[in-house]
Amino acid sequence: MVATRNPLNIGAAARAMANFGFSHLRVVSPYDVAFREARSAVGAAPLLQSAEEYGVVADASADCRLVVGTTSVGHRELQHPIRRLEYGARLIRRALASGPVALLFGSEKFGLSNEDLSHCHWLMRIPTVSQDLSMNLGQAVALCLYELVRDAKAVVARPEKVRRAVAEETEQITLLLLQILRKSGYVNPVTAGSTEEKVRRLIRRLDIAGRDVAVLLGMLRQVLWKLEKKAP
Amino acid sequence: MVATRNPLNIGAAARAMANFGFSHLRVVSPYDVAFREARSAVGAAPLLQSAEEYGVVADASADCRLVVGTTSVGHRELQHPIRRLEYGARLIRRALASGPVALLFGSEKFGLSNEDLSHCHWLMRIPTVSQDLSMNLGQAVALCLYELVRDAKAVVARPEKVRRAVAEETEQITLLLLQILRKSGYVNPVTAGSTEEKVRRLIRRLDIAGRDVAVLLGMLRQVLWKLEKKAP
Repeated sequence: MVATRNPLNIGAAARAMANFGFSHLRVVSPYDVAFREARSAVGAAPLLQSAEEYGVVADASADCRLVVGTTSVGHRELQHPIRRLEYGARLIRRALASGPVALLFGSEKFGLSNEDLSHCHWLMRIPTVSQDLSMNLGQAVALCLYELVRDAKAVVARPEKVRRAVAEETEQITLLLLQILRKSGYVNPVTAGSTEEKVRRLIRRLDIAGRDVAVLLGMLRQVLWKLEKKAP
Repeated sequence: MVATRNPLNIGAAARAMANFGFSHLRVVSPYDVAFREARSAVGAAPLLQSAEEYGVVADASADCRLVVGTTSVGHRELQHPIRRLEYGARLIRRALASGPVALLFGSEKFGLSNEDLSHCHWLMRIPTVSQDLSMNLGQAVALCLYELVRDAKAVVARPEKVRRAVAEETEQITLLLLQILRKSGYVNPVTAGSTEEKVRRLIRRLDIAGRDVAVLLGMLRQVLWKLEKKAP
Protein backbone atom coordinates (compact mmCIF):
# COMPACT_ATOMS: atom_id res chain seq x y z
CA MET A 1 0.00 0.00 0.00
CA VAL A 2 1.79 3.10 -1.26
CA ALA A 3 0.95 6.59 0.04
CA THR A 4 -2.48 5.47 1.22
CA ARG A 5 -4.48 8.40 2.56
CA ASN A 6 -7.30 6.75 4.46
CA PRO A 7 -6.18 4.32 7.20
CA LEU A 8 -9.56 2.57 6.87
CA ASN A 9 -8.43 1.39 3.44
CA ILE A 10 -5.26 -0.15 4.90
CA GLY A 11 -7.47 -1.89 7.45
CA ALA A 12 -9.80 -3.11 4.70
CA ALA A 13 -6.80 -4.43 2.78
CA ALA A 14 -5.61 -6.28 5.89
CA ARG A 15 -9.05 -7.81 6.34
CA ALA A 16 -9.12 -9.01 2.73
CA MET A 17 -5.61 -10.46 3.18
CA ALA A 18 -6.80 -12.42 6.20
CA ASN A 19 -9.86 -13.56 4.25
CA PHE A 20 -7.74 -15.00 1.45
CA GLY A 21 -4.70 -16.22 3.35
CA PHE A 22 -2.06 -13.55 2.66
CA SER A 23 0.14 -12.33 5.49
CA HIS A 24 2.88 -9.90 4.43
CA LEU A 25 1.50 -6.37 4.42
CA ARG A 26 3.96 -3.58 3.60
CA VAL A 27 3.05 0.05 3.91
CA VAL A 28 5.01 2.74 2.07
CA SER A 29 4.83 6.32 3.42
CA PRO A 30 1.19 6.28 4.55
CA TYR A 31 -0.44 9.69 5.13
CA ASP A 32 -1.84 8.67 8.48
CA VAL A 33 0.63 6.86 10.74
CA ALA A 34 -2.25 5.71 12.96
CA PHE A 35 -3.21 3.08 10.38
CA ARG A 36 -2.34 0.25 12.78
CA GLU A 37 -5.47 1.01 14.77
CA ALA A 38 -7.85 0.98 11.77
CA ARG A 39 -11.17 -0.47 12.93
CA SER A 40 -11.85 -1.73 9.43
CA ALA A 41 -9.32 -4.56 9.93
CA VAL A 42 -12.00 -6.79 11.46
CA GLY A 43 -10.32 -10.07 12.40
CA ALA A 44 -6.99 -8.92 10.94
CA ALA A 45 -5.58 -6.85 13.79
CA PRO A 46 -2.46 -9.07 14.18
CA LEU A 47 -1.72 -8.74 10.46
CA LEU A 48 -2.02 -4.97 10.71
CA GLN A 49 0.21 -4.91 13.79
CA SER A 50 2.95 -6.82 12.02
CA ALA A 51 2.76 -4.69 8.84
CA GLU A 52 6.19 -3.41 7.81
CA GLU A 53 6.64 0.29 7.14
CA TYR A 54 8.94 1.69 4.43
CA GLY A 55 9.80 5.09 3.03
CA VAL A 56 10.05 4.15 -0.64
CA VAL A 57 8.92 1.39 -3.00
CA ALA A 58 12.52 0.37 -3.76
CA ASP A 59 13.06 -0.67 -0.14
CA ALA A 60 9.63 -2.23 0.27
CA SER A 61 10.13 -4.44 -2.79
CA ALA A 62 13.86 -5.10 -2.47
CA ASP A 63 13.51 -8.84 -1.78
CA CYS A 64 10.85 -9.47 -4.45
CA ARG A 65 11.57 -11.29 -7.71
CA LEU A 66 8.61 -9.61 -9.40
CA VAL A 67 6.95 -6.23 -8.76
CA VAL A 68 3.48 -5.66 -10.21
CA GLY A 69 1.68 -2.32 -10.10
CA THR A 70 -2.11 -2.10 -10.09
CA THR A 71 -4.04 0.48 -12.06
CA SER A 72 -7.63 1.13 -12.98
CA VAL A 73 -6.82 3.52 -15.78
CA GLY A 74 -5.13 3.08 -19.11
CA HIS A 75 -1.67 4.08 -18.10
CA ARG A 76 0.35 6.69 -19.11
CA GLU A 77 3.86 7.75 -19.80
CA LEU A 78 5.81 4.68 -18.79
CA GLN A 79 4.51 2.26 -21.41
CA HIS A 80 4.43 -0.78 -19.18
CA PRO A 81 2.72 -3.87 -20.49
CA ILE A 82 -0.75 -3.86 -18.92
CA ARG A 83 -2.34 -7.20 -18.16
CA ARG A 84 -5.93 -7.93 -17.24
CA LEU A 85 -6.39 -9.26 -13.72
CA GLU A 86 -7.47 -12.72 -14.91
CA TYR A 87 -4.25 -13.19 -16.88
CA GLY A 88 -1.92 -11.23 -14.61
CA ALA A 89 -2.91 -13.28 -11.58
CA ARG A 90 -1.95 -16.41 -13.46
CA LEU A 91 1.52 -15.00 -14.18
CA ILE A 92 1.90 -13.97 -10.54
CA ARG A 93 0.96 -17.44 -9.29
CA ARG A 94 3.62 -18.88 -11.57
CA ALA A 95 6.25 -16.34 -10.43
CA LEU A 96 5.50 -17.09 -6.78
CA ALA A 97 7.07 -20.50 -7.26
CA SER A 98 10.48 -18.84 -7.59
CA GLY A 99 10.29 -16.05 -5.00
CA PRO A 100 8.17 -13.37 -3.35
CA VAL A 101 6.05 -11.08 -5.52
CA ALA A 102 5.11 -7.50 -4.60
CA LEU A 103 1.68 -6.21 -5.57
CA LEU A 104 1.56 -2.40 -5.36
CA PHE A 105 -1.55 -0.32 -4.71
CA GLY A 106 -1.25 3.45 -5.04
CA SER A 107 -3.07 6.24 -3.26
CA GLU A 108 -6.85 6.65 -3.46
CA LYS A 109 -6.58 9.86 -5.39
CA PHE A 110 -3.58 9.54 -7.66
CA GLY A 111 -2.76 5.85 -7.89
CA LEU A 112 0.93 4.98 -8.22
CA SER A 113 3.37 7.75 -9.11
CA ASN A 114 5.67 7.49 -12.11
CA GLU A 115 8.54 6.90 -9.69
CA ASP A 116 6.62 4.01 -8.10
CA LEU A 117 5.75 2.64 -11.52
CA SER A 118 9.39 2.67 -12.61
CA HIS A 119 9.98 -0.14 -10.10
CA CYS A 120 7.28 -2.32 -11.65
CA HIS A 121 7.90 -5.08 -14.18
CA TRP A 122 4.36 -4.71 -15.50
CA LEU A 123 0.92 -3.43 -14.55
CA MET A 124 -2.30 -5.22 -13.77
CA ARG A 125 -5.71 -3.78 -14.56
CA ILE A 126 -9.02 -4.78 -13.00
CA PRO A 127 -11.47 -5.17 -15.90
CA THR A 128 -14.00 -2.52 -14.93
CA VAL A 129 -16.52 -1.28 -17.48
CA SER A 130 -15.13 2.21 -17.71
CA GLN A 131 -11.52 3.17 -17.17
CA ASP A 132 -12.64 6.65 -16.14
CA LEU A 133 -14.36 5.33 -13.04
CA SER A 134 -11.84 4.30 -10.40
CA MET A 135 -12.42 1.52 -7.90
CA ASN A 136 -12.58 1.73 -4.15
CA LEU A 137 -9.11 0.81 -2.87
CA GLY A 138 -10.25 -1.82 -0.36
CA GLN A 139 -12.42 -3.47 -3.02
CA ALA A 140 -9.55 -3.43 -5.53
CA VAL A 141 -7.25 -5.21 -3.05
CA ALA A 142 -9.94 -7.79 -2.30
CA LEU A 143 -10.49 -8.50 -6.02
CA CYS A 144 -6.79 -8.99 -6.76
CA LEU A 145 -6.29 -11.33 -3.81
CA TYR A 146 -9.45 -13.26 -4.66
CA GLU A 147 -8.27 -13.76 -8.23
CA LEU A 148 -4.89 -14.99 -6.93
CA VAL A 149 -6.49 -17.77 -4.87
CA ARG A 150 -9.46 -18.37 -7.15
CA ASP A 151 -9.94 -22.01 -8.00
CA ALA A 152 -10.51 -22.51 -11.70
CA LYS A 153 -11.59 -26.10 -11.08
CA ALA A 154 -14.40 -24.93 -8.82
CA VAL A 155 -16.10 -23.28 -11.80
CA VAL A 156 -17.29 -26.63 -13.03
CA ALA A 157 -17.48 -28.33 -9.64
CA ARG A 158 -20.77 -29.95 -8.86
CA PRO A 159 -22.38 -28.70 -5.68
CA GLU A 160 -22.74 -31.19 -2.87
CA LYS A 161 -25.18 -33.80 -4.09
CA VAL A 162 -28.61 -33.68 -2.53
CA ARG A 163 -30.35 -37.03 -2.79
CA ARG A 164 -33.43 -36.73 -4.97
CA ALA A 165 -36.60 -38.72 -4.40
CA VAL A 166 -36.55 -42.16 -6.05
CA ALA A 167 -39.34 -43.22 -8.36
CA GLU A 168 -41.13 -45.24 -5.67
CA GLU A 169 -41.34 -42.17 -3.44
CA THR A 170 -42.44 -39.90 -6.26
CA GLU A 171 -45.17 -42.35 -7.16
CA GLN A 172 -46.38 -42.54 -3.53
CA ILE A 173 -46.75 -38.79 -3.57
CA THR A 174 -48.47 -38.86 -6.93
CA LEU A 175 -51.00 -41.47 -5.82
CA LEU A 176 -51.84 -39.64 -2.60
CA LEU A 177 -52.27 -36.37 -4.48
CA LEU A 178 -54.52 -38.07 -7.02
CA GLN A 179 -56.68 -39.49 -4.23
CA ILE A 180 -57.00 -35.98 -2.81
CA LEU A 181 -57.85 -34.50 -6.19
CA ARG A 182 -60.54 -37.14 -6.73
CA LYS A 183 -62.03 -36.50 -3.29
CA SER A 184 -61.96 -32.77 -3.99
CA GLY A 185 -63.80 -33.16 -7.26
CA TYR A 186 -60.82 -31.85 -9.23
CA VAL A 187 -60.72 -34.94 -11.42
CA ASN A 188 -63.41 -35.03 -14.08
CA PRO A 189 -64.39 -38.71 -14.59
CA VAL A 190 -64.41 -38.23 -18.36
CA THR A 191 -60.84 -36.93 -18.55
CA ALA A 192 -59.53 -38.84 -15.52
CA GLY A 193 -56.90 -40.71 -17.51
CA SER A 194 -55.30 -37.63 -18.99
CA THR A 195 -55.48 -35.75 -15.65
CA GLU A 196 -53.58 -38.60 -13.96
CA GLU A 197 -50.85 -38.39 -16.55
CA LYS A 198 -50.59 -34.63 -16.18
CA VAL A 199 -50.30 -34.86 -12.41
CA ARG A 200 -47.71 -37.61 -12.67
CA ARG A 201 -45.57 -35.55 -15.01
CA LEU A 202 -45.96 -32.43 -12.89
CA ILE A 203 -44.76 -34.25 -9.77
CA ARG A 204 -41.69 -35.51 -11.67
CA ARG A 205 -40.86 -32.00 -12.83
CA LEU A 206 -40.73 -30.84 -9.22
CA ASP A 207 -37.56 -32.87 -8.73
CA ILE A 208 -38.30 -33.48 -5.05
CA ALA A 209 -35.40 -33.90 -2.63
CA GLY A 210 -35.20 -37.20 -0.78
CA ARG A 211 -35.37 -35.54 2.61
CA ASP A 212 -38.64 -33.77 1.72
CA VAL A 213 -40.54 -36.95 0.83
CA ALA A 214 -41.66 -37.79 4.37
CA VAL A 215 -42.87 -34.24 5.02
CA LEU A 216 -44.83 -34.11 1.77
CA LEU A 217 -46.41 -37.50 2.39
CA GLY A 218 -47.38 -36.37 5.88
CA MET A 219 -49.05 -33.24 4.53
CA LEU A 220 -50.93 -35.13 1.87
CA ARG A 221 -52.09 -37.85 4.28
CA GLN A 222 -53.41 -35.21 6.64
CA VAL A 223 -55.33 -33.48 3.85
CA LEU A 224 -56.73 -36.80 2.63
CA TRP A 225 -57.75 -37.77 6.17
CA LYS A 226 -59.58 -34.48 6.54
CA LEU A 227 -61.33 -34.90 3.20
CA GLU A 228 -62.40 -38.45 4.01
CA LYS A 229 -63.64 -37.44 7.46
CA LYS A 230 -65.75 -34.69 5.92
CA ALA A 231 -67.24 -36.94 3.32
CA PRO A 232 -70.75 -38.13 4.17
CA MET B 1 -28.92 -5.11 0.20
CA VAL B 2 -31.03 -6.36 3.09
CA ALA B 3 -31.11 -4.57 6.46
CA THR B 4 -27.76 -2.90 5.78
CA ARG B 5 -26.61 -0.91 8.80
CA ASN B 6 -23.87 1.32 7.41
CA PRO B 7 -24.96 3.53 4.48
CA LEU B 8 -21.30 3.66 3.38
CA ASN B 9 -21.61 -0.02 2.49
CA ILE B 10 -24.62 0.66 0.27
CA GLY B 11 -22.57 3.39 -1.40
CA ALA B 12 -19.63 1.02 -1.83
CA ALA B 13 -21.96 -1.56 -3.37
CA ALA B 14 -23.30 1.07 -5.79
CA ARG B 15 -19.74 2.01 -6.77
CA ALA B 16 -18.85 -1.63 -7.45
CA MET B 17 -22.04 -2.01 -9.50
CA ALA B 18 -21.04 0.98 -11.62
CA ASN B 19 -17.53 -0.47 -11.98
CA PHE B 20 -18.84 -3.75 -13.35
CA GLY B 21 -21.87 -2.59 -15.30
CA PHE B 22 -24.82 -3.48 -13.05
CA SER B 23 -27.65 -1.01 -12.61
CA HIS B 24 -30.58 -2.30 -10.54
CA LEU B 25 -29.91 -1.71 -6.86
CA ARG B 26 -32.68 -2.68 -4.46
CA VAL B 27 -32.52 -1.85 -0.79
CA VAL B 28 -34.63 -3.74 1.75
CA SER B 29 -35.35 -2.03 5.09
CA PRO B 30 -32.01 -0.22 5.52
CA TYR B 31 -31.19 0.98 9.04
CA ASP B 32 -30.19 4.42 7.83
CA VAL B 33 -32.61 5.98 5.37
CA ALA B 34 -29.98 8.58 4.42
CA PHE B 35 -28.12 5.97 2.36
CA ARG B 36 -28.82 7.85 -0.87
CA GLU B 37 -26.27 10.46 0.13
CA ALA B 38 -23.45 7.97 0.90
CA ARG B 39 -20.17 9.58 -0.12
CA SER B 40 -18.68 6.15 -0.79
CA ALA B 41 -20.69 5.89 -4.02
CA VAL B 42 -17.94 7.67 -5.97
CA GLY B 43 -19.11 7.93 -9.57
CA ALA B 44 -22.29 5.99 -8.79
CA ALA B 45 -24.53 8.73 -7.40
CA PRO B 46 -27.19 8.30 -10.13
CA LEU B 47 -27.34 4.55 -9.44
CA LEU B 48 -27.81 5.25 -5.74
CA GLN B 49 -30.47 7.85 -6.47
CA SER B 50 -32.49 5.41 -8.54
CA ALA B 51 -32.17 2.55 -6.02
CA GLU B 52 -35.57 1.03 -5.20
CA GLU B 53 -36.59 0.67 -1.58
CA TYR B 54 -38.64 -2.26 -0.25
CA GLY B 55 -39.88 -3.45 3.11
CA VAL B 56 -39.35 -7.18 2.65
CA VAL B 57 -37.33 -9.56 0.47
CA ALA B 58 -40.50 -11.09 -1.03
CA ASP B 59 -41.43 -7.75 -2.62
CA ALA B 60 -37.87 -6.87 -3.63
CA SER B 61 -37.42 -10.17 -5.46
CA ALA B 62 -40.98 -10.62 -6.77
CA ASP B 63 -40.05 -10.28 -10.46
CA CYS B 64 -36.91 -12.43 -10.29
CA ARG B 65 -36.73 -15.93 -11.74
CA LEU B 66 -33.89 -16.87 -9.36
CA VAL B 67 -33.03 -15.59 -5.88
CA VAL B 68 -29.54 -16.30 -4.56
CA GLY B 69 -28.45 -15.51 -1.01
CA THR B 70 -24.83 -14.78 -0.15
CA THR B 71 -23.12 -16.08 2.95
CA SER B 72 -19.62 -16.21 4.32
CA VAL B 73 -20.38 -18.89 6.88
CA GLY B 74 -21.37 -22.50 6.57
CA HIS B 75 -25.10 -22.06 6.87
CA ARG B 76 -27.37 -23.20 9.22
CA GLU B 77 -30.87 -24.42 9.72
CA LEU B 78 -32.35 -24.08 6.27
CA GLN B 79 -30.20 -26.65 4.48
CA HIS B 80 -29.90 -24.74 1.23
CA PRO B 81 -27.44 -26.01 -1.32
CA ILE B 82 -24.33 -23.83 -0.92
CA ARG B 83 -22.29 -23.13 -4.03
CA ARG B 84 -18.84 -21.61 -4.27
CA LEU B 85 -18.73 -18.22 -5.95
CA GLU B 86 -16.83 -19.54 -9.00
CA TYR B 87 -19.52 -22.12 -9.73
CA GLY B 88 -22.53 -20.14 -8.51
CA ALA B 89 -21.68 -17.20 -10.75
CA ARG B 90 -21.72 -19.54 -13.72
CA LEU B 91 -25.21 -20.75 -12.82
CA ILE B 92 -26.39 -17.16 -12.36
CA ARG B 93 -25.04 -16.13 -15.76
CA ARG B 94 -26.95 -19.00 -17.31
CA ALA B 95 -30.16 -18.11 -15.42
CA LEU B 96 -29.92 -14.47 -16.51
CA ALA B 97 -30.71 -15.59 -20.04
CA SER B 98 -34.27 -16.39 -18.95
CA GLY B 99 -35.02 -13.53 -16.53
CA PRO B 100 -33.77 -11.25 -13.76
CA VAL B 101 -31.78 -12.74 -10.90
CA ALA B 102 -31.71 -11.30 -7.37
CA LEU B 103 -28.46 -11.49 -5.40
CA LEU B 104 -29.10 -10.88 -1.69
CA PHE B 105 -26.59 -9.44 0.77
CA GLY B 106 -27.54 -9.43 4.45
CA SER B 107 -26.60 -7.07 7.24
CA GLU B 108 -22.99 -6.53 8.29
CA LYS B 109 -23.54 -8.12 11.64
CA PHE B 110 -25.98 -10.95 11.13
CA GLY B 111 -26.06 -11.69 7.42
CA LEU B 112 -29.39 -12.80 6.01
CA SER B 113 -32.15 -13.83 8.42
CA ASN B 114 -33.80 -17.23 8.17
CA GLU B 115 -36.88 -15.47 6.81
CA ASP B 116 -34.75 -13.84 4.09
CA LEU B 117 -33.08 -17.16 3.34
CA SER B 118 -36.42 -18.91 2.91
CA HIS B 119 -36.89 -16.85 -0.26
CA CYS B 120 -33.60 -18.09 -1.75
CA HIS B 121 -33.27 -20.95 -4.20
CA TRP B 122 -29.69 -21.54 -3.06
CA LEU B 123 -26.77 -19.82 -1.37
CA MET B 124 -23.44 -18.64 -2.69
CA ARG B 125 -20.27 -18.62 -0.61
CA ILE B 126 -17.13 -16.58 -1.23
CA PRO B 127 -14.21 -19.01 -0.81
CA THR B 128 -12.41 -17.31 2.07
CA VAL B 129 -9.77 -19.21 4.04
CA SER B 130 -11.74 -19.35 7.25
CA GLN B 131 -15.49 -19.39 7.50
CA ASP B 132 -15.23 -17.82 10.95
CA LEU B 133 -13.83 -14.60 9.54
CA SER B 134 -16.52 -12.61 7.76
CA MET B 135 -15.85 -10.34 4.81
CA ASN B 136 -16.39 -6.62 4.55
CA LEU B 137 -19.78 -6.12 2.90
CA GLY B 138 -18.60 -3.73 0.18
CA GLN B 139 -15.75 -6.08 -0.71
CA ALA B 140 -18.11 -9.06 -0.82
CA VAL B 141 -20.42 -7.25 -3.26
CA ALA B 142 -17.45 -6.27 -5.45
CA LEU B 143 -16.17 -9.88 -5.55
CA CYS B 144 -19.53 -11.34 -6.55
CA LEU B 145 -20.07 -8.79 -9.32
CA TYR B 146 -16.50 -9.22 -10.57
CA GLU B 147 -16.96 -12.99 -10.78
CA LEU B 148 -20.22 -12.48 -12.71
CA VAL B 149 -18.49 -10.44 -15.43
CA ARG B 150 -15.12 -12.18 -15.22
CA ASP B 151 -13.83 -13.31 -18.59
CA ALA B 152 -12.58 -16.88 -18.47
CA LYS B 153 -10.95 -16.45 -21.87
CA ALA B 154 -8.83 -13.59 -20.58
CA VAL B 155 -6.97 -16.01 -18.29
CA VAL B 156 -4.99 -17.32 -21.20
CA ALA B 157 -5.08 -14.15 -23.27
CA ARG B 158 -1.70 -12.96 -24.42
CA PRO B 159 -0.87 -9.43 -23.38
CA GLU B 160 -0.51 -6.88 -26.15
CA LYS B 161 2.57 -7.84 -28.08
CA VAL B 162 5.57 -5.61 -27.58
CA ARG B 163 7.97 -5.82 -30.50
CA ARG B 164 11.29 -7.30 -29.38
CA ALA B 165 14.65 -6.31 -30.82
CA VAL B 166 15.57 -8.23 -33.95
CA ALA B 167 18.92 -10.03 -34.20
CA GLU B 168 20.55 -7.24 -36.18
CA GLU B 169 19.75 -4.73 -33.45
CA THR B 170 20.85 -7.05 -30.67
CA GLU B 171 24.14 -7.64 -32.44
CA GLN B 172 24.68 -3.87 -32.88
CA ILE B 173 24.26 -3.48 -29.14
CA THR B 174 26.55 -6.42 -28.48
CA LEU B 175 29.31 -5.08 -30.70
CA LEU B 176 29.18 -1.60 -29.19
CA LEU B 177 29.26 -3.04 -25.69
CA LEU B 178 32.23 -5.23 -26.60
CA GLN B 179 34.13 -2.19 -27.95
CA ILE B 180 33.46 -0.42 -24.67
CA LEU B 181 34.58 -3.41 -22.64
CA ARG B 182 37.79 -3.65 -24.65
CA LYS B 183 38.48 0.06 -24.23
CA SER B 184 37.80 -0.30 -20.51
CA GLY B 185 40.25 -3.16 -20.13
CA TYR B 186 37.48 -5.56 -19.11
CA VAL B 187 38.37 -8.00 -21.85
CA ASN B 188 41.44 -10.07 -21.12
CA PRO B 189 43.21 -10.73 -24.48
CA VAL B 190 43.82 -14.37 -23.50
CA THR B 191 40.14 -15.12 -22.86
CA ALA B 192 38.71 -12.59 -25.33
CA GLY B 193 36.91 -15.23 -27.37
CA SER B 194 35.02 -16.70 -24.46
CA THR B 195 34.21 -13.23 -23.07
CA GLU B 196 32.67 -12.24 -26.37
CA GLU B 197 30.45 -15.29 -26.34
CA LYS B 198 29.39 -14.64 -22.79
CA VAL B 199 28.47 -11.03 -23.56
CA ARG B 200 26.57 -12.05 -26.65
CA ARG B 201 24.52 -14.57 -24.73
CA LEU B 202 23.89 -12.13 -21.90
CA ILE B 203 22.54 -9.50 -24.29
CA ARG B 204 20.18 -12.08 -25.81
CA ARG B 205 18.89 -13.04 -22.40
CA LEU B 206 17.89 -9.43 -21.76
CA ASP B 207 15.14 -9.77 -24.37
CA ILE B 208 15.31 -6.10 -25.32
CA ALA B 209 12.18 -4.37 -26.56
CA GLY B 210 12.34 -2.92 -30.07
CA ARG B 211 11.56 0.58 -28.89
CA ASP B 212 14.51 0.52 -26.45
CA VAL B 213 17.16 -0.26 -29.07
CA ALA B 214 17.76 3.33 -30.17
CA VAL B 215 18.08 4.54 -26.58
CA LEU B 216 20.54 1.78 -25.67
CA LEU B 217 22.64 2.37 -28.74
CA GLY B 218 22.70 6.09 -27.95
CA MET B 219 23.90 5.40 -24.41
CA LEU B 220 26.59 3.00 -25.55
CA ARG B 221 27.84 5.33 -28.30
CA GLN B 222 28.12 8.14 -25.80
CA VAL B 223 30.14 5.98 -23.41
CA LEU B 224 32.38 4.74 -26.22
CA TRP B 225 32.95 8.30 -27.46
CA LYS B 226 33.95 9.35 -23.96
CA LEU B 227 36.34 6.40 -23.62
CA GLU B 228 37.97 7.06 -26.97
CA LYS B 229 38.35 10.77 -26.24
CA LYS B 230 40.09 9.92 -22.96
CA ALA B 231 42.48 7.48 -24.55
CA PRO B 232 45.98 8.87 -25.09
